[in-house]
Amino acid sequence: MFVYDQLGIETNAKALHEAFRWSPQYVNHFAVKATPTPEILRIIYDTGMGFDCSSRGELMMVDQTEVGGHGIFYSSNNTPDRDYQLASGLGAIINVDKLPYVEQVAQALGGLPTSMAIRYNPGAIKQGNDIIGDPQQSKFGDTEEHVLDALQAMRRGGVERLGLHTMVVSNEKEPDSFAETAKMMRELADKASTLFGLEISFINVGGGLGINYSPEEDPVDVAAVGQAIESELGHLGVPILTENGRFITGPNGYLLTRVTHGIIESHAPYLQIDTSINNMARLATVTAAYHHINILGRDGDLTRPMHVVGSMCANTDKMFKDRSLPASIQPGDLMVIHDAGAHSRANSHNYNFRLRAGEVIVRPNGQHQLIRRHETEEHLFATTKGL
Amino acid sequence: MFVYDQLGIETNAKALHEAFRWSPQYVNHFAVKATPTPEILRIIYDTGMGFDCSSRGELMMVDQTEVGGHGIFYSSNNTPDRDYQLASGLGAIINVDKLPYVEQVAQALGGLPTSMAIRYNPGAIKQGNDIIGDPQQSKFGDTEEHVLDALQAMRRGGVERLGLHTMVVSNEKEPDSFAETAKMMRELADKASTLFGLEISFINVGGGLGINYSPEEDPVDVAAVGQAIESELGHLGVPILTENGRFITGPNGYLLTRVTHGIIESHAPYLQIDTSINNMARLATVTAAYHHINILGRDGDLTRPMHVVGSMCANTDKMFKDRSLPASIQPGDLMVIHDAGAHSRANSHNYNFRLRAGEVIVRPNGQHQLIRRHETEEHLFATTKGL
Repeated sequence: MFVYDQLGIETNAKALHEAFRWSPQYVNHFAVKATPTPEILRIIYDTGMGFDCSSRGELMMVDQTEVGGHGIFYSSNNTPDRDYQLASGLGAIINVDKLPYVEQVAQALGGLPTSMAIRYNPGAIKQGNDIIGDPQQSKFGDTEEHVLDALQAMRRGGVERLGLHTMVVSNEKEPDSFAETAKMMRELADKASTLFGLEISFINVGGGLGINYSPEEDPVDVAAVGQAIESELGHLGVPILTENGRFITGPNGYLLTRVTHGIIESHAPYLQIDTSINNMARLATVTAAYHHINILGRDGDLTRPMHVVGSMCANTDKMFKDRSLPASIQPGDLMVIHDAGAHSRANSHNYNFRLRAGEVIVRPNGQHQLIRRHETEEHLFATTKGL
Repeated sequence: MFVYDQLGIETNAKALHEAFRWSPQYVNHFAVKATPTPEILRIIYDTGMGFDCSSRGELMMVDQTEVGGHGIFYSSNNTPDRDYQLASGLGAIINVDKLPYVEQVAQALGGLPTSMAIRYNPGAIKQGNDIIGDPQQSKFGDTEEHVLDALQAMRRGGVERLGLHTMVVSNEKEPDSFAETAKMMRELADKASTLFGLEISFINVGGGLGINYSPEEDPVDVAAVGQAIESELGHLGVPILTENGRFITGPNGYLLTRVTHGIIESHAPYLQIDTSINNMARLATVTAAYHHINILGRDGDLTRPMHVVGSMCANTDKMFKDRSLPASIQPGDLMVIHDAGAHSRANSHNYNFRLRAGEVIVRPNGQHQLIRRHETEEHLFATTKGL
């Protein structure tokens, strides 16, 4: 079961808003894909945030949950006409991924909207980081030349408010990296202005604000990140947007699981729990993904190295390798997998017909509530039943 | 849409059965997790196969599809009592993963069944391969000492037919590797006999029979694999079992997808298709996974290197990198992703609210039939609706 801490979500939202107080009309558009759960979106909406959507399903959830009031930023790629139409109908700012989509949007909507943006990919001039990789190898965004062409096409098509967007780092904690991104966006806005007389009305510097997956790491200094971006973009006086997801929900979600057997000795000692890698797929897919774990009530006794595994019939289901845990662990003990609030339940799957876990919110007053049911076999058979 | 070729499935089933004709009562227990779709299981059942299950959901699908008649081999690990009870109720052979589970099964069932097996992990004495990894690092199976202890405990508990199981390679094509596994099992059976007077009644040498993902590779010589295993185990005269999945369905399933836009030039040329990496997760998670692709009607013209990408907002969604494809590709063209019949739909997910593809079977007479519906947003919202 995933368990979320509402107070923690609200605290991080407040810290982020504080860090960008210098920007007029600042909005963080929470990346829905991090934690696509209606009740989580409601809590985030109440902190004043908008939403970053990049699929039809995400747009529909924001719509059905009635949380679009602070804006939707729609950063899709390879998009069907009907998805642009849905986004437009919901009042989203459409952020096209590449130059040719300006024309597609015009055709799909019968003209261009009054506000519109394009995603910039700096290519070789900016380094990405481990999670997001080298911008030059990224499928997202377009070259400087194409971005400038697109801005001109948008203006010709009647767009009044031109926006720029980029997203070049993920889980990043260095203020300097954000300053570098902001500088890159300032230079691009300057070129649009000096070369073509196009004033940029808003700049989305993307998300990527990191969290410390290990308690030994320093937390991100979000105020310093805000200042770093201000130093490059503050003088422009235009609204700055971000699209952080992980920073808001990542550290405020936990995967709670129960120890099913005592330590079993074989070629190595194994501890078994009642979840599997399908609920924490990033442990198997993200290079060097680390999640802290602890056993409730047994924190002082980390003497015994062991592997922690679930029930899945797959080699990837060795969730934690050689972790030092209490030798006194007993069946029925509760294990907490930390920092599972973002890109965890969202990325879960049903391989080997393993079920995806439900979600619970813990309210600031300590009460809790089920906000997503645990799957049952009925969900596994939903697309074949009756055929 | 995934498309399966019934005739191909039947042809590979026949080749496998031919290769093991030397073994009395040979059964291949098809690994349900490879392609867990009722109509596929029905076709496989009709070829005479049993099923290898390793989760409650897989047992339930075999039961509900009424295809358990040729036997179920239940190779779970970290198993709740109620799942052992369900397996037992369906007449499955319970294959325990480690020594302590013999006692758990006895308690869960109120005694041990008449047939039972244990999974052997040879540790350092056998090499695995790239997909399955080093046996010593695998969570599955138990040491020789524990296996021999377990066999004695089973016999004391009243088990009449003792079985051995192992699974140490995956997508393997070398007959020598299978001979080595068979030899290892023969030696283990010999030890059980000479040290403890325990005769082994059946041996499951696992699955792992490979396929050629690239048309340039040689196909597996299944007859030679059968002979290699016969050379080590044939003289014992006991039933040999296998649990091949990929060999049966892998090459006989295709992911059919449509080109959505012409080639788009940015930092590199991109071709966009109407599926995403969520439907072929193994491209992102299995080291060096390769799948052949072609464009229907444009096979003679592979002159243009490009990246093939879907719509997912994730860096992993660069499905095929630098593939040489026809420069004449047009929107609406059909792309075929080959060898997508096993561990593909089964391993799919909904990250970024991308939908999982449906499935179609092509009958030997050329007619086709929908056997799994494409997901809709309704499926995405199934566990949060009404909360």
